[in-house]
Amino acid sequence: MSYRGRAKQFLESQNISIGDMISIKKETVKYRGMLLDRAEDADQLHIVLKMDSGYNVGIAIDGAEVELIDKGEKPEINLPPLDIQRDPEKKDVSIISTGGTVASVIDYKTGAVHPAFTADDLLRATPELLDEANISGKAIMNILSENMKPEFWVQAAQSVADEISGGADGVVVAHGTDTMHYTAAALSFILETPVPIVLTGAQRSSDRPSSDAFLNLMSSVAIAKSDIAEVTVCMHSTENDNQAHIHRGTRVRKMHTSRRDTFNSINSPPLARVKEGKVKIIDKNFHYHKRGECQLEVNDSLEEKVGFIKSYPGITTELLDYHIDKGYKGLLIEGTGLGHCPDHLIPSLQRAADEKIPVVMTSQCLYGRTNLNVYSTGRKLLTAGVIPAGDMLPEVAYVKLVWALGQTSQREEVKKIMQTNLKGEINEKSSSKYFLRDYGE
Amino acid sequence: MSYRGRAKQFLESQNISIGDMISIKKETVKYRGMLLDRAEDADQLHIVLKMDSGYNVGIAIDGAEVELIDKGEKPEINLPPLDIQRDPEKKDVSIISTGGTVASVIDYKTGAVHPAFTADDLLRATPELLDEANISGKAIMNILSENMKPEFWVQAAQSVADEISGGADGVVVAHGTDTMHYTAAALSFILETPVPIVLTGAQRSSDRPSSDAFLNLMSSVAIAKSDIAEVTVCMHSTENDNQAHIHRGTRVRKMHTSRRDTFNSINSPPLARVKEGKVKIIDKNFHYHKRGECQLEVNDSLEEKVGFIKSYPGITTELLDYHIDKGYKGLLIEGTGLGHCPDHLIPSLQRAADEKIPVVMTSQCLYGRTNLNVYSTGRKLLTAGVIPAGDMLPEVAYVKLVWALGQTSQREEVKKIMQTNLKGEINEKSSSKYFLRDYGE
Repeated sequence: MSYRGRAKQFLESQNISIGDMISIKKETVKYRGMLLDRAEDADQLHIVLKMDSGYNVGIAIDGAEVELIDKGEKPEINLPPLDIQRDPEKKDVSIISTGGTVASVIDYKTGAVHPAFTADDLLRATPELLDEANISGKAIMNILSENMKPEFWVQAAQSVADEISGGADGVVVAHGTDTMHYTAAALSFILETPVPIVLTGAQRSSDRPSSDAFLNLMSSVAIAKSDIAEVTVCMHSTENDNQAHIHRGTRVRKMHTSRRDTFNSINSPPLARVKEGKVKIIDKNFHYHKRGECQLEVNDSLEEKVGFIKSYPGITTELLDYHIDKGYKGLLIEGTGLGHCPDHLIPSLQRAADEKIPVVMTSQCLYGRTNLNVYSTGRKLLTAGVIPAGDMLPEVAYVKLVWALGQTSQREEVKKIMQTNLKGEINEKSSSKYFLRDYGE
Repeated sequence: MSYRGRAKQFLESQNISIGDMISIKKETVKYRGMLLDRAEDADQLHIVLKMDSGYNVGIAIDGAEVELIDKGEKPEINLPPLDIQRDPEKKDVSIISTGGTVASVIDYKTGAVHPAFTADDLLRATPELLDEANISGKAIMNILSENMKPEFWVQAAQSVADEISGGADGVVVAHGTDTMHYTAAALSFILETPVPIVLTGAQRSSDRPSSDAFLNLMSSVAIAKSDIAEVTVCMHSTENDNQAHIHRGTRVRKMHTSRRDTFNSINSPPLARVKEGKVKIIDKNFHYHKRGECQLEVNDSLEEKVGFIKSYPGITTELLDYHIDKGYKGLLIEGTGLGHCPDHLIPSLQRAADEKIPVVMTSQCLYGRTNLNVYSTGRKLLTAGVIPAGDMLPEVAYVKLVWALGQTSQREEVKKIMQTNLKGEINEKSSSKYFLRDYGE
């Protein structure tokens, strides 16, 4: 056990090991759950429990009464390698892990999150995957997705490209859910792909009956084998554990802090539904890239110095000036309504234009599209050179601006890229359908 | 006509007056609509048309071919005052206008937005209101809501309070839709009210058959007469023009750039539905303040220096430091997932705590609630003094922080205010119901 100091003493004195079910009473609160291995950042004063809810909690041992409920199965260490023959009848699917809750799918015995995993780990945990495809697995990083930065998008894109070059018929990327939609958009713009690239994650870790990891992973492998050769996100489509939606990587957003069906397509229906391993396209008229249509291509120059500014009633013109003064190369504004911000920001927006810094306008409404021709505010913004982003999501427009500025430093070129539909991120025509999950399914 | 210079010449040469239906051809595009009075910011080169879509567009006259379709009715000027007797059987409802599309309800003849209006203007335009209540009307400002600032919230609150002190049984506030939810939250915190206060607006202006202004106004008056003595928002509940939802002022958000049913309750069902003038409470178990339960009270001290920061993959610790250096008194963070931001911001968050600046965490998911006890990132944020906002919307938490810092400068007091449910903005218990308009109606 890797607990130290007082925590170690406390646990040993009660004959408690990692993996045991215990209950802990602190004052009037009682916690029940499985003792996990020490969290990376744990001090000597806390222990970590995996609760029945599927969440981990750290509990200070000070003043805690503990009771052993059930001895856990010991985690197996140094298992011999699996001897699995490649089945030439089956597709080859690579599973790449970047970290996050879903990575714990392989740790159902201890509940702890591994820093790295192999195909063997994965297949021991989820042998059902072998019925579906030849699986290879690799952990390329172990990052909680709130800590994802543009440089990691590049690293992930390169790893995906390596798998595709190496012959993978599809790639699944396991990712934390917090910023999965940002990464999905980034991979969409960075990669041209001949095969499916599917991001998936979990809202609850995999050692609980309530975990969504298994269905998400199995459904993602089904998509990785399908003909949908785009970057997509595959997650639960309802709170029930029986079907998943496939969202285009440039149309999807995390919309709930904890629900399993948190990911939703915005201003677009999902591409497909997966139920019992079967993929069903939702709107037959919806164009998507088929397997083999594109050649693998990696355009991974990014410009990280892009500001993401939300307009709000107290916003100051100094905030814009700060970004300009600090040398930001582009600004993404999440405006109000049709894409507005207060009039008093106009001089700073004009200054950005004069300094050739593209300023892109989206809407914090999320649904719908910008239209700067309706009200005087919008017309002033256009005059000040602001670039309306149509029905692109703010997060997607931010990622696209990071990418566009990596491709060119010419403001006019950036504007053209931002307003051209590259990966399904912009609909040319207005549609007010698909509002709040009204997909007409 | 108040057009000047070339625009005036152009119109006079074609014998076109304000209110006429005209068509304008420019290159290959043809516009059809009613000539409006000059926009406030118009130069001599543009004229403004009210299109069939209900939107106004400015068109450069340069190279335009114009055709008169129909002479409009002349706007009536200097009408004699209406002689309407107060009906003692009816409730007294005050309608206060702050500007925005809905204010144009009274300008159906010219389509132009008045800088001010009187009860007479309103009743000439919407005589149906007289069947419902004794109506008094007043324009207190004429502001597109993207330009609303905290100081205007105070002005609006004081005007509402004056109406209530003056005997109004209910107050309707006409407001632009862009930031109506910010103002609704502000009035919720500033005012204790014995009577209903209803904000309403329009997504399309009132001279078009497609306008939502009439139904929203009539439904708002129905709520102003009801026993729901809270600050609410009343807007269309569907794309059809036949019913409205009443949302609590601290639970509502504009979710679509253009749909008439753009306003939605988040993490909560709407309070009520209005159909054919009848108010129906949606969830009978939902507690709300009844008429006369509270005494009128105005707590309008605000602290405008509150930053609103969205967490994103490229966010820098310098952005937080900028706000601290600039003397911001509080920071509202729109984090990812359960309420996270990147680890590398921790030192600046700790610095804010050390300088007694409250930092409040919400989630950009919008639905769900913050929980900083699940992952290591959350626990680090708690250690750095970050205040989780539960299931409060980011926009509402921002407004509440502006208000809380007006009530006290003590960080601990602010924390207590932020985490106490004052106006229905926080649910004590988690609920993952009501996701994406699944109100169970």
